[in-house]
Amino acid sequence: MRVTPRKKYLLTPGPTPVPEEILLTQAEPIIHHRTPEFKKIFTEVSEGLKYVFQTKNPVLVFSSSGTGAMESAVANLKQDGIKFLSVMGGKFGERWTEICKAFGADCEVLEVKWGQSPDTKDIETKLSGDKAIKVILTTLCETSTGSVYDVKAIAKIAKKYDALVVVDAISGLLADEFRMDDWGIDIAIAGSQKGLMLPPGLSFISLSGRAWEYVDKSKPQAYYFNLKKAMSSGEKYDTPWTPAVSLVIGLRKALELIKEEKIENVWKRHNFLAATCRQAIEGLGLKLFAQNPSSAVTSVMMPDSIDSAEFVKFIRNEFGISIAGGQGALKGKIFRIAHLGYMNIFDLLVGIAAIEFALHNFGYKFSLGKGILKLEEEFLKEYKKEI
Amino acid sequence: MRVTPRKKYLLTPGPTPVPEEILLTQAEPIIHHRTPEFKKIFTEVSEGLKYVFQTKNPVLVFSSSGTGAMESAVANLKQDGIKFLSVMGGKFGERWTEICKAFGADCEVLEVKWGQSPDTKDIETKLSGDKAIKVILTTLCETSTGSVYDVKAIAKIAKKYDALVVVDAISGLLADEFRMDDWGIDIAIAGSQKGLMLPPGLSFISLSGRAWEYVDKSKPQAYYFNLKKAMSSGEKYDTPWTPAVSLVIGLRKALELIKEEKIENVWKRHNFLAATCRQAIEGLGLKLFAQNPSSAVTSVMMPDSIDSAEFVKFIRNEFGISIAGGQGALKGKIFRIAHLGYMNIFDLLVGIAAIEFALHNFGYKFSLGKGILKLEEEFLKEYKKEI
Repeated sequence: MRVTPRKKYLLTPGPTPVPEEILLTQAEPIIHHRTPEFKKIFTEVSEGLKYVFQTKNPVLVFSSSGTGAMESAVANLKQDGIKFLSVMGGKFGERWTEICKAFGADCEVLEVKWGQSPDTKDIETKLSGDKAIKVILTTLCETSTGSVYDVKAIAKIAKKYDALVVVDAISGLLADEFRMDDWGIDIAIAGSQKGLMLPPGLSFISLSGRAWEYVDKSKPQAYYFNLKKAMSSGEKYDTPWTPAVSLVIGLRKALELIKEEKIENVWKRHNFLAATCRQAIEGLGLKLFAQNPSSAVTSVMMPDSIDSAEFVKFIRNEFGISIAGGQGALKGKIFRIAHLGYMNIFDLLVGIAAIEFALHNFGYKFSLGKGILKLEEEFLKEYKKEI
Repeated sequence: MRVTPRKKYLLTPGPTPVPEEILLTQAEPIIHHRTPEFKKIFTEVSEGLKYVFQTKNPVLVFSSSGTGAMESAVANLKQDGIKFLSVMGGKFGERWTEICKAFGADCEVLEVKWGQSPDTKDIETKLSGDKAIKVILTTLCETSTGSVYDVKAIAKIAKKYDALVVVDAISGLLADEFRMDDWGIDIAIAGSQKGLMLPPGLSFISLSGRAWEYVDKSKPQAYYFNLKKAMSSGEKYDTPWTPAVSLVIGLRKALELIKEEKIENVWKRHNFLAATCRQAIEGLGLKLFAQNPSSAVTSVMMPDSIDSAEFVKFIRNEFGISIAGGQGALKGKIFRIAHLGYMNIFDLLVGIAAIEFALHNFGYKFSLGKGILKLEEEFLKEYKKEI
């Protein structure tokens, strides 16, 4: 007998579970993208994206993973006399540095200890010490460590030194509060398979007027990811290349769901699940890894006696549940459980129960059931406030 | 903010959750049923059904709910000089009596207290007291009370008095052990939306040689549900009327999954989930309703202070989880949670957590988390035996 389940559960910080009604749109017949029917959909989607980015600027859509949009930012900003500052406190900070390297862009690095969030004073020191730095590349949620960065404060300092702030908000968007225009963010980037609750395949980028001034002056090493080309179509609610039609149709549904819930409520929901998850983890006697935890994903220190890669593999193989391990230097040392997108308290309950089963299996001493009880207690507190 | 989930969870004793790969078959283009392609599928399905019924006799397929197949049994057996005995200990026993009434069949009733299973001695008393009784109508799992009936023992007594045994195995099949041929069951009936993990829409019936002797002699008040007509097609792996093509295609997939797991393991899995569910319920201080509980569904006495209909409604409205209330005389007095078909320990965890949330909301005094802890403990015990 196998009492262990064969269903699959996705509790990773991307891809995330896709709502049933969006999955159904993916099975609909493909319509042509140069038709009034699609144009109407793309117009709706373009407006909806402004709402989730909290911007009045157009949000451009690429058929690519989020990394494509990150590349477009660097490739289209790069020009003589401009230096980038990469805020590097995890794998996705490293990605910014690697992209700069790939395009031969002049890039200064601010090393941030993994698990910590950047100290704005350190950013200011860099900016005041080197006036050539004109672009700060940072992340909202550094997915690899589960840390949220205070991009609002970073933008404030950047403004003081007349530098642009480019934010990889791929995993953070919709989980962590993010207000592009109000906070003075110059470029924001997102992906479909995170808080937007879609399959992977779309990336998004929006630029402020200040950012466009730089882009207009550059001779980009880019064709597919040429932002001026994308904008000349985008401002007419169009794309220069064939868009991923079914994903765009799914996106319309996702944006409808988000507008219906209201973005402030989406943030609050993520915030509640994240705080509750942290309580459950601490209830098991485990230590949290991130100093400033994001509401997208909770990173957890693995006790020394256990290899977190084995732990994650065990949970996936035995219980069909995908959580994430550590990346790079954190390999084997942390595990990460997401509460991102189409998730609720019951998803967390399943995830924490599986973590309890695995801890038990790996011989870790703890009080069985304490994690899931914590979830119940916190849920009931919050539920009482609602009714 | 709404922290409460909007996902839907099905923990009812039918319909039950449908596996992802079967859902996908329901979106495939419809093929014609009078083609070699469909004939191959229907042949496979017909063989697979014999396995789940544990019979060598053909299993006939109707496009109807299970009630249709129940009707076909009565309508095709009814004849002069034959009296039915309806074993009536719940809503589905009542259904047998109602069908007899609708067809003007001579029907004796054995009243069984709801929540109890029939005493075979009482059946013997009926049979020995009235030689005209030639057909016993009974259920495997009386879904309305969550009771399993010892149909093997009933069949033994029936044989002694040369009576047929007709078993409504609609909710019990694949959850409770059932061996049609070995146990000498004459007619067995099932439906698609239970242990077979399909959407509703198909019913199944299989008859022993003895049963066919009676059917052959009858002049049935039946056209759609004429068993001789169904058999003349069925023995050629065909149906007289248009079959529900996509459900049959889904059924092929379901039977593959069951064969892969092996029926003994399917029974054991249901048995484990049912036993674990009962422990969780008792851990919450609640009382079980059924004297001999089925492995398909657990029926629970609602504390007097709570109306179980309100309780079930609250769980559905607030948490998106469907469990069942009481039917008929049990309305308001019991609730029922299923562990039937495509379900696992995590489904139970979600169900029991929701029950804990609701009990808390209705002011019932209990130790929060005790039900879900019990599930974890029992799962780990069983899991250890597996590895």
